[in-house]
Parts: sequence; C-alpha cells; structure tokens
Amino acid sequence: MDQITAAASAARTAAVTLARAERVTKDAALTAAAAALRAAKPELMAANAADLAAAPDLTAAFRDRLTLTPSRIEAMATGLDDIAALPDPVGRLLSEWTRPNGLVIRRIAQPLGVIGMIFESRPNVAADAAALCLKAGSAIILRGGRESFRSVGAIHTCLLQGLAEAGLPEACIQIAPDTDRAFVGSMLAASGLIDLIIPRGGKSLVNRVLAEARVPVLAHAEGLCHTYVDGAADPAMARKILADAKMRRLTVCGATETLLIDARVAPFLLPLLVGDLAALGCDFRADARARAIIPALPAATDDDFATEWLDAILNIAVVDGVAGALSHIRRFGSEHTEAIVTEDEAAATAFLDGLDAAVGLWNASTQFCDGGEFGFGAEIGIATGRLHARGPVGLEQLCTFRYQVVGTGQVRG
Amino acid sequence: MDQITAAASAARTAAVTLARAERVTKDAALTAAAAALRAAKPELMAANAADLAAAPDLTAAFRDRLTLTPSRIEAMATGLDDIAALPDPVGRLLSEWTRPNGLVIRRIAQPLGVIGMIFESRPNVAADAAALCLKAGSAIILRGGRESFRSVGAIHTCLLQGLAEAGLPEACIQIAPDTDRAFVGSMLAASGLIDLIIPRGGKSLVNRVLAEARVPVLAHAEGLCHTYVDGAADPAMARKILADAKMRRLTVCGATETLLIDARVAPFLLPLLVGDLAALGCDFRADARARAIIPALPAATDDDFATEWLDAILNIAVVDGVAGALSHIRRFGSEHTEAIVTEDEAAATAFLDGLDAAVGLWNASTQFCDGGEFGFGAEIGIATGRLHARGPVGLEQLCTFRYQVVGTGQVRG
Repeated sequence: MDQITAAASAARTAAVTLARAERVTKDAALTAAAAALRAAKPELMAANAADLAAAPDLTAAFRDRLTLTPSRIEAMATGLDDIAALPDPVGRLLSEWTRPNGLVIRRIAQPLGVIGMIFESRPNVAADAAALCLKAGSAIILRGGRESFRSVGAIHTCLLQGLAEAGLPEACIQIAPDTDRAFVGSMLAASGLIDLIIPRGGKSLVNRVLAEARVPVLAHAEGLCHTYVDGAADPAMARKILADAKMRRLTVCGATETLLIDARVAPFLLPLLVGDLAALGCDFRADARARAIIPALPAATDDDFATEWLDAILNIAVVDGVAGALSHIRRFGSEHTEAIVTEDEAAATAFLDGLDAAVGLWNASTQFCDGGEFGFGAEIGIATGRLHARGPVGLEQLCTFRYQVVGTGQVRG
Repeated sequence: MDQITAAASAARTAAVTLARAERVTKDAALTAAAAALRAAKPELMAANAADLAAAPDLTAAFRDRLTLTPSRIEAMATGLDDIAALPDPVGRLLSEWTRPNGLVIRRIAQPLGVIGMIFESRPNVAADAAALCLKAGSAIILRGGRESFRSVGAIHTCLLQGLAEAGLPEACIQIAPDTDRAFVGSMLAASGLIDLIIPRGGKSLVNRVLAEARVPVLAHAEGLCHTYVDGAADPAMARKILADAKMRRLTVCGATETLLIDARVAPFLLPLLVGDLAALGCDFRADARARAIIPALPAATDDDFATEWLDAILNIAVVDGVAGALSHIRRFGSEHTEAIVTEDEAAATAFLDGLDAAVGLWNASTQFCDGGEFGFGAEIGIATGRLHARGPVGLEQLCTFRYQVVGTGQVRG
C-alpha cells in the first residue's frame, strides 16, 4: 500500500499540471513518444525477447498477444500520432445557461485525475492507454501482466522520453514497480488516491477487479451479444450481417454469440444462415425449435446460451418476434451490444426501445461496437455499467466535468 | 441478503415497466400521491407522533428533522406536484451523428434502473427521493433512519396509492421491511441488484456508505467550501456575498466554512467582514496573519481549517493572491463548491481554472450550489465524486444513456 500511496500521490501532483497543460504540449509529448518508440525498436525487441524467454510455457494465443514485432511497434507509434491528432477533450464547453437571477452556469469538461489501468500481458495496451489518458489530461498508473514486465518497462521508457521532451512531469505515466500481485490489490483499494480503474483483459481479470475494487471501475466483464433476425428481415442483409457479426473477428467483445431468429422466417432462412456460417468454419449450439428445422444441429443448454464463446461457435434460438427476442436477451444478455435485422421500422423501434444494453443496432453488425467505428478516434475499452459511460470509452468519456458559475454579486438571501 | 435480493428483483422487474412508462403516467402517479398525502394528514401526523413518542431522548435538532407538521406535509405534496411539472428526462436525444459509412448514432437518456436511498430520520426525504426517481424512470428502495420508521411507512402508503392510480407496479417504490441495521449492509453489498446508492445525511452516514458500498455511490461526504476575497474585490460585494455564503443557512453543505482573504486588502477589508459577521452572531478561527490584523480573533488550528462547522463559526486565513487561495483550497477543500470575489477577470479565470471542485463561482454566494438554483427543478443531493455526476444531482443526472445505431446493412468486413 505504501508503494501505491507514493505512486498515486506523485500522480495526483502531476495530474494538476497535466490538467492545465495546453493541447500543443500534450501532443508534443505524444509525437515525441512515438518517435522514441520508433527509435527504440532494437531495445523493445530485446526486452520482449527476454519476456518471451522467461515464460516458455505460454499458450500460442498468450504468446501472440505478448509478442512485439517491428510492425506492431510501428502500429503503437502510429496510434500515438493518431491520438495527438484528435481534438483536445479537456475544457470543452458542454453546456451553458443563464438563470433568471443573471447567474451564468457553464458545464466544462475536465480531466478525471488519476487513472489506474490493469491489463493482461499485451504490451501495446500500455502505449494506447497512456496516450489516451495523457490526451484526456489524466495521470495514469499502468499495471500489465507480469509476463510483459520487461516489454512494458521498455515502452514506458519511450513514453517518459515524450513527457520529458514536452516538459511534462514524469509522474504523469507510471508503471507498477514490480510484478508482485499485491500491487494490483493496492490499486483496487486506493479509494481517494485513484479516481478510476480500467481493467482490460479476460473475464477473470475483469471480474476480480469488479469484485474487489473500492475505486470506481469502467469495464465490461462480458460481451454476450445477440443478433436477432426478425420476420421482416431482408434475407440477403441478414446473411451478410450475421456472417460479419459472428465471424469477422471471433475474439472481440462485440462479436455475436447468439443468433435469435423469428419463428416466422426460421424454416427457410435458418438453413441459409447456418449454411453460410458452416462454410466459414462455424459450429453451432441450437435450441429444440431450431433443431426441429435442422436436426443435425447440436443441442444447446442454458449454459451455452450464457457462454461468451469468443470462438467459432454460434448459439441459435428460434423466438416469437421482438418480444421473444427481448425476453431471451433479458435472460442471457450482458447489456453490451444487441442487433436487430428487419425492414419493419415498428419492430426495430420496439426492439431498440426494449433493450437495456449499452448499444442497440438496427440493420448493422454488432462488431460496430467500437470507439473507432463510433468516431471517437480511439477507445480505451467498452463499458457495460450504467454510471458515467456506457459503450465505447474514448477521450470524451475519460473526462469528468465541473461547473463554473459567473455572477455579479448575487446572493440567495 | 434474502430480503434485499427479493426487493431488488421486484424493483428490477418494476423498473423495466417504469422505464417505458409515458410521461403522463408517471405524472399521474405523482399528482395522485400528492393528493393522497394531503388526504392522509391525520394518519401521517399520528404515525409521526408515534415515532416521536418512541424516541424521547432525541436532541432538539434531530427531533425537528423528524417532526411532521401539516405545513411540512403540504410542502411534501407540493414537491411531488412540482416534480410532475418538470420535463421528462427519459428518452431525451442527447446527441446524434452520422458516420462516413452512413451509420446514424444516437445517444439517448435512459433510466438508471434500481436506486437505493439511505437517509437519516427525516421523513420528507422519502417523498422527495421517490418522486425524483419515479420521474427519472428508476425504481427506488428507501431505507430511512429507524426513528422515522412509522412516518416513512405512512408516506410510503400514499406513494403506493399514487402508483396504483396510475397503474404502475407497486415495486417501483419500496421501503426497508424493518429497522434492522443489517438491511443497510445488504443494500451496500447488492452489486448487480442495485445500480446506484444515494446516501443523504451526516458525514458519518455518508462515510459509512462510501467505505462499505460495493455498488456505485453518488454522494458528498463533506462541503468544506471557501470564499476567497481577492485583492481586486468590490468591498461592498464581498461583504454582501460573505454574509450570505456563511450565514444565510448554516447547515447546508454549500455554506462557506472558511474565508480566504488576499493580503493586499486584508488590513482594511477583514475588519469590515469580521464586523458584519460578528453582528450576525458568527464566531471565528483565524490564522496568524489574520490575528496580526485583528488580535482579538481566536487562533485557528489545521484541524479547524479541516472542519465543516455547519455552524456560526468561520475559519479565516490571509493568503497571497489566487495562488495562495488555491493552495489552501487544495489542502483543505472537499471538491464541493468554492467562490472568488473579484473585479479582476484574469484573477477569476485563474481561480476557476485552478479548482478541482465540482462548482466554482465568481462573484456569487457558495449557497447557490443547489439543484433548484441551477434550474434543475429539484435535486436528490450533491455529488463530489468525479464519475457520472458532480454538483447538484437532479433528474438528468439520475439518468444514464444508451446508444441506438441505425444502419442499412453495414458490416465491418
């Protein structure tokens, strides 16, 4: 706890300076850090090689996430340049009104303060998250998975060069001092020291953070997204959207896990949808009504419908219209992203209005739930809670606000 | 925990209905509840008399807060009518934009879901809070101080009549089933069942909630507000504002607790300010620089500067300009409300931009930190955290949002 108190206190002091930094200063730090990353490719590759050598027993997927390549380093640097090019979210006038007594009230975007980022062994997250927080005027404390300790350290060195060249305090971007797991616990307990924790990684990491944190958290534990193909869907559009929603990228949180199909069209459309996805290598878990149409489909259990596969497996349920779809989604959904495919505006409206999810889509792929696709430029993650931000979390969502009230001597009397 | 699980599950189901209720339905419930309160004056007075009789050893202030009178009951009813007259915050289009690929993205205000309200033995809070949550489309679970159990029960009966007349589910407004303290603990632990906890009461109540809650909280633990009188202040305005900020109402969280005065004007202005407030019955705790000007002032300790008096006591410190004021505020402030009195726009800007508080005022009384004064119509409290809402929490701040995305078959590809 001493370590986190020291780190957070330094971050708080740095954040006061950073909150008042001009856009040009923050952008200079970002572009200088990008240049430093490009210049440090050999050092980054060496640090990453040492990380990989120290953990020989990783799964292939884990190893892939941990691995840096010259093109991945270039992508990190480009990401920093891209964030430098985004508008400054700090100081935006969000609204302004005048009261009958003449008081002018302004609501102004302001940095959150100190953000703690807890992520798995995927070193590029360190650069992305630090850059977004810097641009949003908040200090960040990064704690990556321990297998990535050397890689994150080497990236951090480049980020510090950027801060130094722009004359910003080093403590704007800090990393965990060691790989001790206790540091994560201290971050989660640092109420009053850290303003917001953002976890990024698998469900177990996020659930641990949600269960233990004494600090506000923005996160999504799960993206159990549904695509509902309505009786009034354009069949060609439904086929195109479902293939994208499920198969474009299997492991993103906005990937569709369950197809809900209206009983009115299931008999002729379900075989086409299943055929399309089978051709793309997808497997299925289907309810009894779907299996009555295609008996070869494996049977789905309730556990299947509650599973975020992140893999080439699609749950299928036949439902009775929008009401049936909403009822299934209310039972199994994760309030992340849900889509309807229909040409019937009334059905679309009933579906969208009936959802509690962060994002509802009409005639588009669930994989659009993404800060870049929303036009935010970049995102630090997706939020499925109900407070502060929902859906993609970009620069604007990384800000809070304050009121400035301008008077001419008013008193309440 | 069983009780809260049952209550919150019922609330969740009711909230789904309430979230989709038309404005006219919600307003009908509010006006019917107001009529029921007016009609039930005898029953309310009897319940309140029983509460008062059961707790003979209360302090005068506690007793006053607990006491219902016919005019206080009328004020509760009027409060409900006023909330019925406010615009519906649910379903507002907060923003809308179109992406280059043609996707139309809309951000729409939506109810939070289930709100838990924990408050001290002040029965009118039950009616105010329930009405605001109802209008904002969220179900509420009320847990008032145990001394007010019968009074809150009688108010609840009237609120239920309103719901019944409007055809809304009873579970939209629930009260704690008994006075057992364990229920509060269960509410605080009800992560996933309750979406937001709002505590209202003294510092110890709020601090307990902040320390124990596993559910997001909107609250202010403390309103340690400062009024800074700058060297360029209009002396007459400074006298008028300080008298209001400190003395208008002593016990509101926006009351000024500390006067910071610029060393440039302290020698002649401080005696006037102290004289004004002394005439109003105020006592003082002053730093050495202030006592050098007025030796009769009692000395202030650091503990005094850290104390929210909520009483006729004013801390005084002489500071060197805006920088000195900000440095004092950063050390002792509670990020609630801070004011500057000055005719110098540059000083005002430096002060307002340098604050981290929810509300900064220029040439106005700190007692303007209030939902009604901000034009929100009513408030459920003040928030000093950095997530979701800051400052007065009215109907809009009791909402979350969701995205609706309208496409024409777009896929990410």
